[in-house]
Amino acid sequence: MLVQLTYASRVSRTLSSDDIKNILSSSQKNNKADGVTGALCLSNGIFLQILEGDRQKVNKAYHKILADARHKDPAILDYREVISRKFSEWSMGLITRSDDNRQLFLKYSSSSDFDPYSMSGETLRGFFSEVVDNVRWLRKSPD
Amino acid sequence: MLVQLTYASRVSRTLSSDDIKNILSSSQKNNKADGVTGALCLSNGIFLQILEGDRQKVNKAYHKILADARHKDPAILDYREVISRKFSEWSMGLITRSDDNRQLFLKYSSSSDFDPYSMSGETLRGFFSEVVDNVRWLRKSPD
Amino acid sequence: MLVQLTYASRVSRTLSSDDIKNILSSSQKNNKADGVTGALCLSNGIFLQILEGDRQKVNKAYHKILADARHKDPAILDYREVISRKFSEWSMGLITRSDDNRQLFLKYSSSSDFDPYSMSGETLRGFFSEVVDNVRWLRKSPD
Amino acid sequence: MLVQLTYASRVSRTLSSDDIKNILSSSQKNNKADGVTGALCLSNGIFLQILEGDRQKVNKAYHKILADARHKDPAILDYREVISRKFSEWSMGLITRSDDNRQLFLKYSSSSDFDPYSMSGETLRGFFSEVVDNVRWLRKSPD
Amino acid sequence: MLVQLTYASRVSRTLSSDDIKNILSSSQKNNKADGVTGALCLSNGIFLQILEGDRQKVNKAYHKILADARHKDPAILDYREVISRKFSEWSMGLITRSDDNRQLFLKYSSSSDFDPYSMSGETLRGFFSEVVDNVRWLRKSPD
Amino acid sequence: MLVQLTYASRVSRTLSSDDIKNILSSSQKNNKADGVTGALCLSNGIFLQILEGDRQKVNKAYHKILADARHKDPAILDYREVISRKFSEWSMGLITRSDDNRQLFLKYSSSSDFDPYSMSGETLRGFFSEVVDNVRWLRKSPD
Amino acid sequence: MLVQLTYASRVSRTLSSDDIKNILSSSQKNNKADGVTGALCLSNGIFLQILEGDRQKVNKAYHKILADARHKDPAILDYREVISRKFSEWSMGLITRSDDNRQLFLKYSSSSDFDPYSMSGETLRGFFSEVVDNVRWLRKSPD
Amino acid sequence: MLVQLTYASRVSRTLSSDDIKNILSSSQKNNKADGVTGALCLSNGIFLQILEGDRQKVNKAYHKILADARHKDPAILDYREVISRKFSEWSMGLITRSDDNRQLFLKYSSSSDFDPYSMSGETLRGFFSEVVDNVRWLRKSPD
Amino acid sequence: MLVQLTYASRVSRTLSSDDIKNILSSSQKNNKADGVTGALCLSNGIFLQILEGDRQKVNKAYHKILADARHKDPAILDYREVISRKFSEWSMGLITRSDDNRQLFLKYSSSSDFDPYSMSGETLRGFFSEVVDNVRWLRKSPD
Amino acid sequence: MLVQLTYASRVSRTLSSDDIKNILSSSQKNNKADGVTGALCLSNGIFLQILEGDRQKVNKAYHKILADARHKDPAILDYREVISRKFSEWSMGLITRSDDNRQLFLKYSSSSDFDPYSMSGETLRGFFSEVVDNVRWLRKSPD
Ligand SMILES: Cc1cc2nc3c(=O)[nH]c(=O)nc-3n(C[C@H](O)[C@H](O)[C@H](O)COP(=O)(O)O)c2cc1C
Ligand SMILES: Cc1cc2nc3c(=O)[nH]c(=O)nc-3n(C[C@H](O)[C@H](O)[C@H](O)COP(=O)(O)O)c2cc1C
Ligand SMILES: Cc1cc2nc3c(=O)[nH]c(=O)nc-3n(C[C@H](O)[C@H](O)[C@H](O)COP(=O)(O)O)c2cc1C
Ligand SMILES: Cc1cc2nc3c(=O)[nH]c(=O)nc-3n(C[C@H](O)[C@H](O)[C@H](O)COP(=O)(O)O)c2cc1C
Ligand SMILES: Cc1cc2nc3c(=O)[nH]c(=O)nc-3n(C[C@H](O)[C@H](O)[C@H](O)COP(=O)(O)O)c2cc1C
Ligand SMILES: Cc1cc2nc3c(=O)[nH]c(=O)nc-3n(C[C@H](O)[C@H](O)[C@H](O)COP(=O)(O)O)c2cc1C
Ligand SMILES: Cc1cc2nc3c(=O)[nH]c(=O)nc-3n(C[C@H](O)[C@H](O)[C@H](O)COP(=O)(O)O)c2cc1C
Ligand SMILES: Cc1cc2nc3c(=O)[nH]c(=O)nc-3n(C[C@H](O)[C@H](O)[C@H](O)COP(=O)(O)O)c2cc1C
Ligand SMILES: Cc1cc2nc3c(=O)[nH]c(=O)nc-3n(C[C@H](O)[C@H](O)[C@H](O)COP(=O)(O)O)c2cc1C
Ligand SMILES: Cc1cc2nc3c(=O)[nH]c(=O)nc-3n(C[C@H](O)[C@H](O)[C@H](O)COP(=O)(O)O)c2cc1C
Repeated sequence: MLVQLTYASRVSRTLSSDDIKNILSSSQKNNKADGVTGALCLSNGIFLQILEGDRQKVNKAYHKILADARHKDPAILDYREVISRKFSEWSMGLITRSDDNRQLFLKYSSSSDFDPYSMSGETLRGFFSEVVDNVRWLRKSPD
Repeated sequence: MLVQLTYASRVSRTLSSDDIKNILSSSQKNNKADGVTGALCLSNGIFLQILEGDRQKVNKAYHKILADARHKDPAILDYREVISRKFSEWSMGLITRSDDNRQLFLKYSSSSDFDPYSMSGETLRGFFSEVVDNVRWLRKSPD
Repeated sequence: MLVQLTYASRVSRTLSSDDIKNILSSSQKNNKADGVTGALCLSNGIFLQILEGDRQKVNKAYHKILADARHKDPAILDYREVISRKFSEWSMGLITRSDDNRQLFLKYSSSSDFDPYSMSGETLRGFFSEVVDNVRWLRKSPD
Repeated sequence: MLVQLTYASRVSRTLSSDDIKNILSSSQKNNKADGVTGALCLSNGIFLQILEGDRQKVNKAYHKILADARHKDPAILDYREVISRKFSEWSMGLITRSDDNRQLFLKYSSSSDFDPYSMSGETLRGFFSEVVDNVRWLRKSPD
Repeated sequence: MLVQLTYASRVSRTLSSDDIKNILSSSQKNNKADGVTGALCLSNGIFLQILEGDRQKVNKAYHKILADARHKDPAILDYREVISRKFSEWSMGLITRSDDNRQLFLKYSSSSDFDPYSMSGETLRGFFSEVVDNVRWLRKSPD
Repeated sequence: MLVQLTYASRVSRTLSSDDIKNILSSSQKNNKADGVTGALCLSNGIFLQILEGDRQKVNKAYHKILADARHKDPAILDYREVISRKFSEWSMGLITRSDDNRQLFLKYSSSSDFDPYSMSGETLRGFFSEVVDNVRWLRKSPD
Repeated sequence: MLVQLTYASRVSRTLSSDDIKNILSSSQKNNKADGVTGALCLSNGIFLQILEGDRQKVNKAYHKILADARHKDPAILDYREVISRKFSEWSMGLITRSDDNRQLFLKYSSSSDFDPYSMSGETLRGFFSEVVDNVRWLRKSPD
Repeated sequence: MLVQLTYASRVSRTLSSDDIKNILSSSQKNNKADGVTGALCLSNGIFLQILEGDRQKVNKAYHKILADARHKDPAILDYREVISRKFSEWSMGLITRSDDNRQLFLKYSSSSDFDPYSMSGETLRGFFSEVVDNVRWLRKSPD
Repeated sequence: MLVQLTYASRVSRTLSSDDIKNILSSSQKNNKADGVTGALCLSNGIFLQILEGDRQKVNKAYHKILADARHKDPAILDYREVISRKFSEWSMGLITRSDDNRQLFLKYSSSSDFDPYSMSGETLRGFFSEVVDNVRWLRKSPD
Repeated sequence: MLVQLTYASRVSRTLSSDDIKNILSSSQKNNKADGVTGALCLSNGIFLQILEGDRQKVNKAYHKILADARHKDPAILDYREVISRKFSEWSMGLITRSDDNRQLFLKYSSSSDFDPYSMSGETLRGFFSEVVDNVRWLRKSPD
């Protein structure tokens, strides 16, 4: 069963670009092995991650990520069974709120600061769809 | 929760172009701070405004605008929860009924004079959709 | 409330091209004043007219047209509340069955002679949609 | 083709109960002959009538009724093709706003006075459905 | 493939009750053998028959009935593939317009005389559904 | 045009039962005159009110209520055009969170304390539907 | 009322190209006069014909064609009321299974031989839609 | 994943009541162990069986049954993923065409003889739904 | 925002009835305080729990429960935003697979052993709906 | 009746390219004769085949293929009645997981290894649609 799980969390301390590089490189290694794909946004001190793959594997990944001391206040925001993946090209892509996509973030946020905690599941799906459809040029970390 | 609120009001006295400039500049300043976006039409002595953003922020803006002596006879014409914004590029755009868009106004009005007070919510949504889709060249006040 | 009313009638006597010119010129003058738009087909001795605008104004126009001695056997064939107008560019356009659009008339008629009296509301809406979408070049009387 | 046409009009002068009796008796005689059925509401000096039957017969009835000097300001409010009649038991039933059905009128009116001129087609259909379903005991004039 | 075919025809001459009895008895014998079920209405000199069963068998029955000199002016009015039969209990039931069901006929007819030639497929289906649901007591010829 | 507007506000100071009685009696007098109907909930120091009637009248009522010093922090939570009223029997009914309906409040609230500010439009409509359908015995103030 | 009727039949004997020419020329003459349009497929010794036009005229044509000795085993396969015609450009077009459209026939047939007797109404509609949309170059007999 | 598979087959030789008893007793034993439920119809020398349970288990059962010499000409007629079982009370119920349910069989068959090979998936689902809903008294072999 | 989260886990060791009592009593105390409601099934050594309430509170509860050493192998199986609660009467009800509800468990399981890990979100929702609708008598722990 | 059947199986032993060539050549010969079309995927030691055509012919093909010793563990994964074929151009096309279409396989698989046994019917249909629409250049074995 293919599922998508989306959660948000807060950075527990200021993260260096090495921290991020480190998160991405383990993600890409582990996720590839488990057939997990997805995207990770970081903006405003908040992580927003979508994980997709086999239900059991996504659960395993999520429950492992929960234990990571680099973030806190985890909250599942959306979860669904899907027919196919949206991010089959990314074992874990990073999206940051650059000048280029400031308006994309605003379009789906209720505040001008990026605040996924207040976004509904449907809004989150709209956001990630537009990320996938329009913003391929944002890709920092294609496989 | 993202919402859109649309209301109409009548100018309470003849407004100079400075009045309008003043309304727009406070709007843009305040709305940007609160993550509120939208558009303001002025035609036939009637304001038609759509405000979108966080439910609480849109309510705050609307209830503050109500107190402005430059208009009267406010009437909420439409209100909905939405997945995303239509006007994420405009902290408050101004649309006036120029020769260029006379027919756009007529298409959604029941009279040849612009009369939003008689328009249904669905007609108003149709009107603003066409404003956003087709009439980007009308923009007077992009951010 | 925006509505569309469609009716058919028969010419009560042979009409000269001056009669038609006269009907169109009063229509365009009056309809513009009342924010009424639409189209008038004449073929096979039968009028088919669609009127759109404010419910009260469309009713006023229809009830006035009823009294015109130049036609008889009026029959309302379709009536609906709409979100927007289809003919916002025409205060009253004339469409006649020229060689160019013979097949358009046949596509929606059950007989080879144009007979709107036998057409359902849905067929009439299909007919007028195709008139608006495809046959703009037919326009004899744009505003 | 079976259709339903609903219109409102205003009494042109105070009507006696003989006037009403007279309208109902001609209606019932003529409508039975033409296979027309329906209901007539009288409240607040306003008539609201629904006529159903063959498209041609309903048009004939409506265009004849228009000429009646006992009312004025006619306005077609709703019209549709239908699969079956709602009032097959009534060649013309009279419904007045008695104490018993005061709330039924209010439920579908926007004002506390009965004002069909402001009612949408959908509201009118809701009103007549509830008349047929719940208020059979109101019948004054069954066939 | 299960289908339903509905057609109307006119009696070609006055039919005696023996004619009817004869039509029904051959129908019941033949239809039972072929797994054809349905109902036959006779009113106002017009037959309205619904035949249901295997597509090939219904076609065979219809094309055979066409040759019967007791009726003329056949017209197919409705035809559909169905999931199940409506008349599985009747190899051919007779329904006549008695006093008891006068209003049922009127509810689906556009005129007060029974005229299936003017009824749409959807109206005919509504009519036969109500026959099956409400009027089982009308049955003259259950198997 | 019939509309429903739902808003919440907070009591600005502790209200006596006379305050409440007073609000209800002016509401009932004014609303009856304007054809406005609805319900007012008071629980946990929060008002939740639904107003229904003509769009203009509901706007007038809401904008007047805004000025009342007995409450603060107004927030429009839902607004829609409707076919008919839900509360045609109540010019303003009071619903308080008694022991009897504690679970009804919980069913639609996200917290155990009644907090309409966090309820979506759809949840609010579910809540008021159940109030109307099941809890007629709660009525404190029928007309 | 506009309808479409589709039936199949088998050639009763080998037909010469003169037979076909003859069928097409009477069809085109008669159908044009009656406002009937459509298409005729001939493949594998089986005719598949779609007739569209006024319900009465299509019935007349079909019942006349039934009597033609050049074919046998007629079977109505589909019949529907439609909003508009699909073949308004063809009073009767001929489509044969040439090399060019072999795959079009296979796409909608259950066997590799063309066998319309086994096709459902929906499959037949799919087949004729694709004929009209994609295969205009197949036209042998445009008007 | 819960699925339902329906197939038909023909008895390969005359079966004694002991054969049937034997089929049912192995079915009930094996199916209970594998969490497979369903029903088996026998009429007119044809088996029609619905098997429901885990996708893998239903496949295993079907592929084993295929090898049974007591039947031949197997044909899968319907297969779907389902939310829940219809026959959770029957590890394998037997339904035969008794006098009592003759009409139930006819209602869903195109011929008067029971012929599941000609039934569509939707017709089969209709048949089994009515078996479950209405014919619980037919049960020969409840667990 | 009201949400429902459903997860499964396995008992990490044999649990005594005191363990269960203890889990239920803390659940009921904590959940009541946080406005969380739901149900807990225990069968076949597997827990299946549905938690409903405010998104943030449900997340808090779930992330706390994850840390409990009495179970392992947690897997989120379903999660949705809802209009209202299903279990507003239960701060945490216990449902065990007794003889009485054996068939209810089978109806939604693909195996005869209760195995929620293989159930889809839709099947789980079907299961809990039937628990709420039909099995109120199962309640062990109403508030 | 046109149907599509999809099943998976495992190679029973290592297959040479001659084995594959042999399977494809008999498939193409036999399927062409029976009007069966489809596609065969081979990846990760697993066959995934879709067969489409007449219900009886597809059943015949499937039941014959079952007996082939070159594969084992057959499991029907999807089956439906369809309006038209998806693969009318292929009597049996071969699709292997080359570098070019690695992501297409991943998009619809829950694991990074191709595992059709875990795919739902809807996911399989999505997969084959994308094969047909986008990957025509993959074709190894067009007719
Ligand atoms: C916000 C965030 C997102 C992460 N996403 C993933 C992920 O998608 N996959 C993954 O394996 N690890 C992810 N990690 C890292 C894990 O928490 C953990 O450090 C990593 O899986 C350990 O990998 P290793 O066992 O290969 O060292 C994430 C960490 C953070 C803070
Ligand atoms: C028709 C109309 C629309 C307005 N729209 C906005 C608006 O969208 N945002 C806003 O902050 N002020 C708006 N205003 C102005 C406010 O009423 C008020 O003057 C302004 O918010 C005061 O800003 P300040 O506190 O920064 O001076 C509007 C005024 C009018 C008459
Ligand atoms: C078929 C037909 C259609 C007409 N349509 C319109 C119309 O759309 N608007 C209109 O004002 N008059 C229309 N007329 C003319 C009116 O009947 C009437 O002559 C006209 O409104 C008088 O205009 P006046 O008062 O300006 O002289 C129509 C007449 C006919 C015969
Ligand atoms: C509000 C109103 C409704 C009427 N409804 C009908 C009606 O449904 N049918 C009808 O024949 N006449 C109706 N009439 C009466 C006609 O206007 C006209 O007087 C009547 O048809 C004349 O009938 P007679 O020709 O038999 O004298 C109505 C009149 C009024 C004022
Ligand atoms: C209106 C009408 C409906 C009929 N319906 C049927 C019918 O449903 N089945 C049937 O076998 N014959 C029907 N018949 C009779 C046939 O036309 C024909 O007389 C009959 O099938 C001959 O039967 P036999 O060959 O057993 O004598 C009908 C005739 C008429 C006029
Ligand atoms: C929460 C709240 C709800 C109210 N609802 C209504 C109402 O529905 N209708 C109304 O006329 N007044 C309502 N009022 C009272 C008005 O604010 C105002 O006091 C009242 O309309 C004055 O009536 P009067 O002009 O007849 O004295 C409400 C007040 C409060 C605090
Ligand atoms: C398969 C087939 C299809 C036919 N289609 C038509 C047709 O669409 N229209 C038509 O008038 N005649 C059609 N015909 C011919 C008629 O059966 C008949 O011969 C013709 O209408 C006689 O025309 P006429 O009276 O002008 O000689 C068809 C014949 C066959 C065998
Ligand atoms: C029409 C038919 C239906 C059957 N259905 C089932 C069934 O649902 N389950 C089953 O286990 N065996 C079924 N069988 C019997 C199997 O073919 C086989 O005889 C049986 O599973 C052997 O069981 P055993 O291994 O316990 O002896 C069926 C046989 C026939 C002919
Ligand atoms: C399967 C399972 C379900 C549980 N469900 C809940 C629950 O719904 N709410 C809750 O507060 N604790 C639940 N608990 C218990 C918590 O894990 C934890 O023991 C408890 O919240 C501690 O409560 P306390 O802090 O009041 O001692 C559950 C434990 C298990 C093993
Ligand atoms: C995975 C797989 C798929 C096959 N697909 C087909 C097929 O679609 N059609 C077919 O006729 N044979 C297919 N075969 C081959 C048949 O099992 C069988 O060998 C073949 O039909 C025998 O053909 P012949 O009788 O012409 O020798 C397939 C075999 C395998 C292992």
